[in-house]
Amino acid sequence: MDKDMVEDIKSESNMPLYYKVQNYILDLIKNNTLKEGDLIPTEMELSIMFHISRPTVRQGLNTLVSKGYLKRIKGKGTFVTKPKILQENTRFIESYNREMNKKGLIPETKVLEISIKICPDILVDKLGVEEGDKIIQLRRLRYAYGEEEQDNKPILLTTVYIPYKKFPNLIMYDFEKRSLYEVFEENNVYIKKALREIEAKLSNKETSKLLEINEGSPIHFISSYGYGEDGSIIEYSESIYPGERNKFIVEITR
Amino acid sequence: MDKDMVEDIKSESNMPLYYKVQNYILDLIKNNTLKEGDLIPTEMELSIMFHISRPTVRQGLNTLVSKGYLKRIKGKGTFVTKPKILQENTRFIESYNREMNKKGLIPETKVLEISIKICPDILVDKLGVEEGDKIIQLRRLRYAYGEEEQDNKPILLTTVYIPYKKFPNLIMYDFEKRSLYEVFEENNVYIKKALREIEAKLSNKETSKLLEINEGSPIHFISSYGYGEDGSIIEYSESIYPGERNKFIVEITR
Repeated sequence: MDKDMVEDIKSESNMPLYYKVQNYILDLIKNNTLKEGDLIPTEMELSIMFHISRPTVRQGLNTLVSKGYLKRIKGKGTFVTKPKILQENTRFIESYNREMNKKGLIPETKVLEISIKICPDILVDKLGVEEGDKIIQLRRLRYAYGEEEQDNKPILLTTVYIPYKKFPNLIMYDFEKRSLYEVFEENNVYIKKALREIEAKLSNKETSKLLEINEGSPIHFISSYGYGEDGSIIEYSESIYPGERNKFIVEITR
Repeated sequence: MDKDMVEDIKSESNMPLYYKVQNYILDLIKNNTLKEGDLIPTEMELSIMFHISRPTVRQGLNTLVSKGYLKRIKGKGTFVTKPKILQENTRFIESYNREMNKKGLIPETKVLEISIKICPDILVDKLGVEEGDKIIQLRRLRYAYGEEEQDNKPILLTTVYIPYKKFPNLIMYDFEKRSLYEVFEENNVYIKKALREIEAKLSNKETSKLLEINEGSPIHFISSYGYGEDGSIIEYSESIYPGERNKFIVEITR
């Protein structure tokens, strides 16, 4: 539930009782009075405060738990957590920047490496190039900020590989400012189809440091193939998304 | 590459040199001479054995690494691993049994619990039921065997919740023998749309024991909503897939 909706509900006099608790806590989170890791008041305290029953308090908190704003820890209490970002690149082909903008988040990118090199053996088949061909390698850390947000931990670490002969001028762009897909499109290249494989792994030492997570944290490891209009591979990438900051969604119909 | 393809390639006299190594190792894995965790011969040894260069040996092994049959560990060598099952329920709505059959695997199911209970608070919204309504809860461990396979570790642990009034007779079925979707369809209920959310987490004590994985292993945690033809929720489920045995794929077009 976003802030506007909360305001709307508040203004209604016949708002269900559990909404009151829910909105009260959500407001404290949104205005940073309650921060990640903070303990919220007990059900008993909230029950007294709002003159409502404990089951009703619990109902209000349940919604915030299922939305990822709160987390109950047995025997310890209920804590403020940060909701995971719902990544939708498992549903749509879209640049990271555009996807974050749509969510009302401000994207930011740090380029760790951009280079031209001989294609490593292991990537020859994946990129559909010949042995000895050159490729471009672009490694980036990506962030996303809420408007009032202070903390700035990375959302993902991604390394993309592109056949050099498809984009000999790619190295000239500033990928802290420009999105790769935007640059592709300026060059009349469109990713028409993407295949992505999702694995669950533990973060290693190097990526943990870069992503500011504990070593051995759960991560989504996503290998992605992007195909152009002629069916050839335009890009192959490997991305690491900390499990604590991301979740993915798919929608399937038949 | 499956066995038939290997046989075909073998019979061709003009098969590329690196195929020889690849097929040799793959045959040893398929006929169980090389088992999960075994060290394979070094590149040098294979190079001498086949009278081919080390880069060619490496090329042959690379394919098996990228297909998940082998894993290189720095300073230790190359080991046999078991390829992850490519789960496609992120692309299609299909029963587990049918999906495994399509892959040439034999599915098996162990029912841990089937019960009728009052809907827990936290599931009321998810299932679109009223507070105090009954639900059916079905918890299953699911397996998949290759033809010549000895090991029988679970592929996933899944708990599905279904509004009781939609299926008052569901409790009568034997879900070790029957697939839930099959039973739905016999009752003229069809899942038309599914939404699935994928999270990466660490396995806890209880699920690790059930899934026969180490505690703290990476898992895919998948929450799934199945909608019927009228748009109402037919089932909500939470499934845990060990990261070491599963990967998921999505295909997106625009």
